Amino acid sequence: MTAAADWQPLSRSRTYELVLDQIEEQIQAGRLTVGDRLPPERELAALLGVSRAAVREALRVLEAQGVLRRPQVGTGPESGNIIAGMPSTGLTRLLRVHVALSNFPLEDVVEARITMERGSARLAAAHATPEHLARMRELLDRMDDPSLPREEFNDLDTEFHVVMAEAAGNRLITDLTTALRNALGHDLLRAFGKLDDWDTTAAVLRRDHHAVYEAVVDGDGEKAAARVENHIRDFYRKMSDKMG
Amino acid sequence: MTAAADWQPLSRSRTYELVLDQIEEQIQAGRLTVGDRLPPERELAALLGVSRAAVREALRVLEAQGVLRRPQVGTGPESGNIIAGMPSTGLTRLLRVHVALSNFPLEDVVEARITMERGSARLAAAHATPEHLARMRELLDRMDDPSLPREEFNDLDTEFHVVMAEAAGNRLITDLTTALRNALGHDLLRAFGKLDDWDTTAAVLRRDHHAVYEAVVDGDGEKAAARVENHIRDFYRKMSDKMG
Repeated sequence: MTAAADWQPLSRSRTYELVLDQIEEQIQAGRLTVGDRLPPERELAALLGVSRAAVREALRVLEAQGVLRRPQVGTGPESGNIIAGMPSTGLTRLLRVHVALSNFPLEDVVEARITMERGSARLAAAHATPEHLARMRELLDRMDDPSLPREEFNDLDTEFHVVMAEAAGNRLITDLTTALRNALGHDLLRAFGKLDDWDTTAAVLRRDHHAVYEAVVDGDGEKAAARVENHIRDFYRKMSDKMG
Repeated sequence: MTAAADWQPLSRSRTYELVLDQIEEQIQAGRLTVGDRLPPERELAALLGVSRAAVREALRVLEAQGVLRRPQVGTGPESGNIIAGMPSTGLTRLLRVHVALSNFPLEDVVEARITMERGSARLAAAHATPEHLARMRELLDRMDDPSLPREEFNDLDTEFHVVMAEAAGNRLITDLTTALRNALGHDLLRAFGKLDDWDTTAAVLRRDHHAVYEAVVDGDGEKAAARVENHIRDFYRKMSDKMG
């Protein structure tokens, strides 16, 4: 006896996934790379034998992932989307929504950020070029200005961590670190604005950053990792009192 | 003299982004959480005063991010999508396509994976429960069977790393580690199948995993991190000869 055929109704909504699969296959095979232009929507729909709506749905997913960017405003859908390499945009978006959904508690995001920053610091200690060190140094000098408004201080602080990640020579680690930082950004900035003992905090932050920088200059990866970890951990401990 | 008004044509394609923003705002505000059902497409379109197509495009993006799952096949678009928490699905997809686009060289993905696994190992050494240790131990025992086919060996190997990440007690680190591993998966498995000195490799892998496990049991985070790093680095060095 043969088993009865087990048919499942096909959902029409799956069409866009087939479009997505085809575009991803072209990318996997190296036939589509950054800077290439996709055929215009109408043409792509005809080539694949699907509706324009299904094509558009697939393109939206790729756009949100930072894999596509739209041509200039006003050129219309006929000019074709351009393959882009903006993974950090997509990562930030993805992490932010899942953090909001409490799929990841705040402490886990902090711990993941510490993990990535430890990696950046270790790699930066091994690979930083004189140019990277000069940029980090310059940021520290600017942060040392006691009259700096705290928002500008915060921007320079962010940039210091980004340059350190870049000095690590690894785009993926840089992007993941940035995305994790951004996922924490909103609440953090609000708490940052509420700190009443700003001068004390700023002094601690300056000292912490100088200490990380010195360890990177010395090429001492373990020390740089330990120092960046302490810095981030102390900072969030202080902030979490304010974030409530 | 006032400056001339600088009007930009609005692109109709931006409507889906407005839908996305509204859904994300509801999530940020905690009015939509995992398990909740969105209104059916038609109703959502009416509530927001936009086309069903725009709603559907926004839903596709959320689906690809692992934020929505469709109701059972056959129930149709009228039953409403369910808010889900499947970040690793979304992360894997995102990283895989950007790795394929060479936005991230393979070495960077390996280095990022090492960074995450070092973090897992350190945290696991501090937080692993007896249950986690028992599961890790059991996987090692099964991997010790010399008659095990290499595909099954590989599955158990993967599971060992997942359990260690879980023992770290951090879902985000677990998901990121899994996504990074998956982004490397395809090429790796092919190379794995081509290894001609399998018995030697298996012996090395068994030794490595036991060494990581012992350090976790001893609660020695630094040693566990160093051992998992050496293990992964050696393994990819061997594999990259085969992947060429």
